Amino acid sequence: MTETTSPALRTALAYYQAWTSHDLGKAMSYIADDIVCDAPAGRLVGADAYRGFMGQFVQILTGSQLIAAFGDDTTALIMYDTETAPVKSAPGAECVTVIDGKITYNRFIFDRAPFDAARKTAT
Amino acid sequence: MTETTSPALRTALAYYQAWTSHDLGKAMSYIADDIVCDAPAGRLVGADAYRGFMGQFVQILTGSQLIAAFGDDTTALIMYDTETAPVKSAPGAECVTVIDGKITYNRFIFDRAPFDAARKTAT
Repeated sequence: MTETTSPALRTALAYYQAWTSHDLGKAMSYIADDIVCDAPAGRLVGADAYRGFMGQFVQILTGSQLIAAFGDDTTALIMYDTETAPVKSAPGAECVTVIDGKITYNRFIFDRAPFDAARKTAT
Repeated sequence: MTETTSPALRTALAYYQAWTSHDLGKAMSYIADDIVCDAPAGRLVGADAYRGFMGQFVQILTGSQLIAAFGDDTTALIMYDTETAPVKSAPGAECVTVIDGKITYNRFIFDRAPFDAARKTAT
């Protein structure tokens, strides 16, 4: 399932391993300064915005499991499940563009509904 | 990006082409009778439940665009954007298991939040 011959996938998996190990600093080393990320809540531009977004998520992350991962020269597509403090199963999918070992674009999909519901229950 | 050498991907793309063309009957020809689908709202079991779920979505579908698609012998992973009547951009990702040309398992991710918001606005 995991094609390690893809340079884009190698970067995407190294990035995934880093953030799922709560190593935000290492994760950010794979992120281009001018990254553009299309996330469910809208577009994030630049590494600072991206770090803010991922930092919040890593704080609530309690577990993760890779479901599938594929890639070619410049594109990697991965799907995983995460366990978070508010939501037991929060799967996500990322399609990233990788140039010179850095993720320059990320199309990121996850379901915000259970997080919205958990927030409502908490307040 | 699209590896047509993967039999699982061939099936996943034929299925995708069918439902995005509003041909639910053809789409269901790629679905195993005992399909299990883990969707955001929970697990669907069996082709009838799956048809009900997809049928509702196909009714509101107004456009689609494939973002990325990869696969190997038995697994395909695709990401796409859809345009629907209530939600302008509703991207999704599916990781499917294919056996003998039929999808037996689908892990399906999309963001329910904009659909929830559109329903609230409509009522």
